[in-house]
Order: sequence, then structure tokens, then C-alpha cells
Amino acid sequence: MDDVVYMKRAIALAKLAAGHTAPNPLVGAVVVKDNEIVGEGYHHKAGTAHAEVHALDQAGDRAEGGTLYVTLEPCSHYGKTPPCALRIIESGIRRVVIGSTDPNPLVSGKGITMLKEAGIEIVSPVCLCECSELNEHFFTYIQTGKPFVTLKSAMSLDGKIATFTGQSQWITNESSRRDGHVLRATHDAMLIGIGTVLADDPQLNCRLSDEELGNALLDNDILNSPIPVHQPDVIVLDSLGRTPVTSRIFDVKERSVHIFVSDGCPKERIKALENAGAIITVIETTSTRKSHKTDILIDIKKLSIDDVLTKLGNLGYTSLLVEGGSAIISSFVETKNFDKIVTYIGDTIIGGTDATPAVGGRGFESLDGSPRLTFTKSTVIDNNIRIEAYRQGRRGAYVHGNR
Amino acid sequence: MDDVVYMKRAIALAKLAAGHTAPNPLVGAVVVKDNEIVGEGYHHKAGTAHAEVHALDQAGDRAEGGTLYVTLEPCSHYGKTPPCALRIIESGIRRVVIGSTDPNPLVSGKGITMLKEAGIEIVSPVCLCECSELNEHFFTYIQTGKPFVTLKSAMSLDGKIATFTGQSQWITNESSRRDGHVLRATHDAMLIGIGTVLADDPQLNCRLSDEELGNALLDNDILNSPIPVHQPDVIVLDSLGRTPVTSRIFDVKERSVHIFVSDGCPKERIKALENAGAIITVIETTSTRKSHKTDILIDIKKLSIDDVLTKLGNLGYTSLLVEGGSAIISSFVETKNFDKIVTYIGDTIIGGTDATPAVGGRGFESLDGSPRLTFTKSTVIDNNIRIEAYRQGRRGAYVHGNR
Repeated sequence: MDDVVYMKRAIALAKLAAGHTAPNPLVGAVVVKDNEIVGEGYHHKAGTAHAEVHALDQAGDRAEGGTLYVTLEPCSHYGKTPPCALRIIESGIRRVVIGSTDPNPLVSGKGITMLKEAGIEIVSPVCLCECSELNEHFFTYIQTGKPFVTLKSAMSLDGKIATFTGQSQWITNESSRRDGHVLRATHDAMLIGIGTVLADDPQLNCRLSDEELGNALLDNDILNSPIPVHQPDVIVLDSLGRTPVTSRIFDVKERSVHIFVSDGCPKERIKALENAGAIITVIETTSTRKSHKTDILIDIKKLSIDDVLTKLGNLGYTSLLVEGGSAIISSFVETKNFDKIVTYIGDTIIGGTDATPAVGGRGFESLDGSPRLTFTKSTVIDNNIRIEAYRQGRRGAYVHGNR
Repeated sequence: MDDVVYMKRAIALAKLAAGHTAPNPLVGAVVVKDNEIVGEGYHHKAGTAHAEVHALDQAGDRAEGGTLYVTLEPCSHYGKTPPCALRIIESGIRRVVIGSTDPNPLVSGKGITMLKEAGIEIVSPVCLCECSELNEHFFTYIQTGKPFVTLKSAMSLDGKIATFTGQSQWITNESSRRDGHVLRATHDAMLIGIGTVLADDPQLNCRLSDEELGNALLDNDILNSPIPVHQPDVIVLDSLGRTPVTSRIFDVKERSVHIFVSDGCPKERIKALENAGAIITVIETTSTRKSHKTDILIDIKKLSIDDVLTKLGNLGYTSLLVEGGSAIISSFVETKNFDKIVTYIGDTIIGGTDATPAVGGRGFESLDGSPRLTFTKSTVIDNNIRIEAYRQGRRGAYVHGNR
């Protein structure tokens, strides 16, 4: 029972670095001696000390004979820092309680083996579901080399994201939009299409305070703390480089803006956007696909979503929040390049065969081919509904077999 | 506390007649003497004894000095049966606990006054929310003269009811469809458009057993009983009388089939359908509206939904379940002729700008004009989602101000 209490505290500590650790996981650790917490900590940022080291440093000599709680199996290899398993053995810790094992097949179990061989008692897993959810981004990334993809949509009860005249503000309410900002803060990067840039000129920052993020992510009973808000990098799919250099996406300083263009993008556009501060990635396109309906769709379809995700994985992004619009979301859905979908339903019905659907594009011809979901949450929040689902059969899923 | 226990039992008893009492309400009653139930009953069918009479008959002399629990204020007027208030006074009951008052402004409070004047102690309301929900159909009907309208839709997470090729079986699963049959059993009538008749030739019966309906509607702790399944009457909106005389809707014996046609319907079609067993209602149409997209839509638009509901109210229907398709649902949504919407979401995403949306038609131009909903439930059931919402500002709402 106590093991669960301390593990939950370690999980809460891990969340203090939400959004800041890529390409590393979120990890928290607590050292307990004689039913007293004598040290605790969390991993802050890639390249800096691991959670176990923070906790053991704080505990000092009091670690000896104590128990270490850690949300993820301690590492056993020399990376940017020495192996944590070694440090634990040296500290005199008698017992290690682990949340989840490392999903990387090259590493999994090795830390545990090293500790066991040193005579340390291992309890594992404890709070496996929570610890797996904590690092669902990282676990997918480390196994697939691509970011965990979350699709976000905000729609009416009948699945529309705008009226037939294009009105979309606001279908969902303040509470839903605030929750959407929590998604931004917890993803490494967010992606939109050139259509949204041209239509809305959004800033795409996370507008939560550290206190608000802390309240949203932390269980108050365990740890009541602000969480420094992370501004996700912005990815724009913009085949022809049409993003205006005066776009508001360039206004947020503490993040990068990546623009993915096709090899058909004019060189002068690339230069202009680089001068505006964008990082340009050129995606080779084999053929220009036929337009389905709109100009916007041409741009998107030209860039292979697979290629985009491979590039983002190579850049070290463990998670990507796709905010649409309709055509962008559909290009991820149709290629089944998503892991999770978070849908906010506003308190209205829009109707109309010509209103903008949440997922447009061509769509699936048959129900055999369409993606299957596992619903995990459906909640009424302040008279909006928030639905959370995972794609069945997605690669890199860990522990939750049916997610 | 005991008052709540006995009232909940009275509510459960009332539900035993679910679907069978129109145009009367569902009412249950329990007589308690010295902490013992000495009589109980419920209203079975319009024109037969009221719940209080059943319970008092069963209690006999033991009613004297006892408490009567009744879900709805006892009547004070001579209708098809003598006033229950009088019967209660004569029985020697000392105390009456009432669930909700009668919403009919002509009657409301009169039964209570009569009882009070006879020196009987009144406790009211008890379990008001449950008692109001129990009779949400009747309360709307008695105040507006029109049936309570429930829209039912079964869609993918992105609001589609069929793929672009028309495939729709099955988007939702067995559990959702079974729940949809509970809706059928609890509504007086169900409505579809000629488009659905021609495309699917459905039978439109309730395929639950009495045991299944009892399990769905009754709290097992209180009353474990089958409920005799009511087959709702069928209403088809069929402007030109195109329903085939061999349609499977004519196969179910214990119900009526109403076909609403326009004054432009050929006389020989009316005769043929009457011969097939249909009851024909002709709705006068002032003008033929322009087709929006499909042939089906012409038929629907010609019949005014207001007129249809007025006729159904006159026929004594207190509740109507609208099962779509897309065009029919949209005609109720656009004219704001609905009280409640129950949406089942299947575990898939269909996508496609040309896939059939849950609500089609023209749609609302602006979010100012679109209907506002109050979400009351959102539940994951067997990996489908069931959402329940009421239209804000609907007429005839009782007690739940914000529904």
C-alpha cells in the first residue's frame, strides 16, 4: 500500500518536467528510509542528471538501507550520464520499486538484472498503468523512431468544425479550449496545415500559466505545484512555402518553427521563410496527386505523412499534436498515422452537407478498412464533452495491449 | 431516508408500464403502514385505474393511518376514473409523499390542496429529479400538445452515419443497438423518412425480450422484473406515398403504421397503402421547396415538421423517437423541433467530405442560430460512447430549468 503512495508521488514529480525532456522520458524518483521521504527528484531535461541521481543526492547517507521508488527502470548504460543502476548500488539502497520496465528491447530488463545481481530487492511493476501513460509518448517514440501522434479536434455534436459559411469560433467553450492548451504544453511539437495559417494566422502558443498547468496535471493531494509551461515547437505543412513571413507563428520566441515544403517549393520562398526565422525541411514528392476539392488539399497530399513523421523522429520529437483543420486531420487518419485522438464536443448541432466535417478528405470506402478505436474516457466537462481514444493496432504501444 | 426508499420503489413500479400508458403519465404508488408495504401498484394503461387505486385496493383496511407514496400528484378531477384525491381521503391515509406535482397548470396543486384540506400531511417533492425524468415525455406533451421528440443517431467519432459508398452496417456495436431498442420500447411512436424505407426496408420493431427491457430500465436492487415490451407505432414521412405495399413495416401486427403524405400524393397510392394496413394522414403543403441535393430531401421538406407534430399530438402520441436518416434528422434539427438527442458513437473514424453526415440538410449559417444543448450523460459502454443531451430553451420542460 505504501509502495503505491510513494510511487504516485514519484509520478507527480516526473510530471513537473512535462514537455521539457524530449527525447528522454519523464521520470520521477523518491527515496524512503524508515517511512520517511529522505530524497526525491525528477529528470528535468535531456543531457542533465536522471531522476534517481537527484533523489539519491538529496538523500545522501540516509539512502543506505532505504527504498528507492522510480517510475521507470533505471538505466544500465553509459549515455550522456553514467548508469543509474551503478549509482543506486553504490548508495546502499536495499530495495528498488519500479513503475514500468524500459520498453526499448535493447535495454529492457538490464537495469533490473544489474540491481538484482548486486543483491538489491526489486519490486516491479507498481502502478504500471499510470507509469505507462506517463510516458506513452516516449514509449512509442523509442520503439518506432517516430513521434507519438495525437489528433485534436473540436466539433459540434454532429461532427462539424465550422458552419457552411466557415464560422467556427467558438464551437467549444473556454474549459475545452483550456484543456486543449494542456495538450499543447505536454507535446513536443504541434502541427497545422498552410490552410489554417492563411485562414486564421494563429500564434499557436500555450496560453496557460504555470499554476494552471500544475492544477491540470497534478493530483493536488500529492503535490501541489506549478509546472513551467513548455511552448511546443510549430510544424507547418506548406508544400509551396506560402506561409507569410509576417505570420504570428513567428512571434513566439522560446520555440522553433519548422516549415515542411515539397521539392517543388520556389527557392526564394525558402530563403524568405528562413530569414523570417523558420527552419525549412524539404520533403521529396514522387508525384503530385490530384486535387480532391480545395486548393489547400493539394498542398497537404503532396507531402507524405510518413516522411514527415520520419523526419520529426530524426529531429528528436517524441510527440506531435495535430490541430487540423479538416484536410490535415484526414491525411493523418487516412494513412492511419495517429496513436490517440482527443475530441472536444461543443454544446451545439451545426448540420449541413456543406459544413466542414471534423475529418474530410476522401474518407474510407468501407468499415473494414477504417481505423478501430479504443475509447478510454468520455467526460462531460462544463457542458462540453471530452472523448479520448487510442487507435487499435498502433505500433509502439506499451503495456496497454488493447490501446 | 425511508421516504426516498419507498419513493424509488414507486418509481420502479411506474416503469413496469413503460410505453403503454399514452396519453397518460407513468405513475407508481406504494402504501406503507408501520414500516411495512401493505399495498402497491402502478397505472397500466389509459382508461384503467390509477396507481393510487391499485395500491389502496391491495392495502384494504390496512391503509388507515398509513403513508401513501405516489410519483405524481394525485388527480382531483373526474376523468375516465373518479379523482384519486377523494379515494385517498376515504381510505384513511394519514400522510401522502409526492414525487412531483402535476405540470398541467389547470390541475397543478389542486390534488394537494384537496388532501391538505382533509387534514392529510403532505410531503412534496421527494425524488423530484427522478420523478420528472420518469415523465419527461408526458410533461412536455401535456404542456405543448405535441409529443416529446427524441432524435437518435448512430455515428462514427467524426459524425458520419455512412461511408461515401453508403456502407453503414455496423458503425455502432451490439450494445449500442440494444440500447437503441430500449429507446424504441419507451417511446409511443418512431419516425423515419421514405428514404430509409426504400433503402433499408426495415421492420422497425423492438427486438428486446421483456427480461432485457426490465434489466435495462429497473434498478435490480429495488425491483427485479420483466417489463412487457411495447412496440412503438411507426410514422413514415412520405410526401408522395412511395412506400411499397410489401414493406416489412407492415409485418408487425401489434402496432399501427401511419404514413404522412402531402396533398400532392396520388389518390391511388393512398388507397393502395390503406389496403396494405397503413393509416394515412394528409398534410397540406403551401409550396414545394427546392431540392437541396437528393430526391429524398424533396419529400421531407414538403411536409412541415410543425404540422406533423401537431397531428401526432392530436392523435395522443406523447413521445416520438426520430431515427433518421441524415435528411430527416436535419429537418427536425433545423426547425428546432426536438427535446432530446441520444447519440451513439462507434469505435471508428470514417472521414470523407462526401460521406453521409449525422445531420445533413442546409445546416445553420451561424453559431448564434444553432441550437444549444445541455449534456446530461456521456458514457463509454462496451467501447462505444453514448451521449445524452437536451435542447436548451425547449418548451414544456419541467423542473430541470436548464434542460
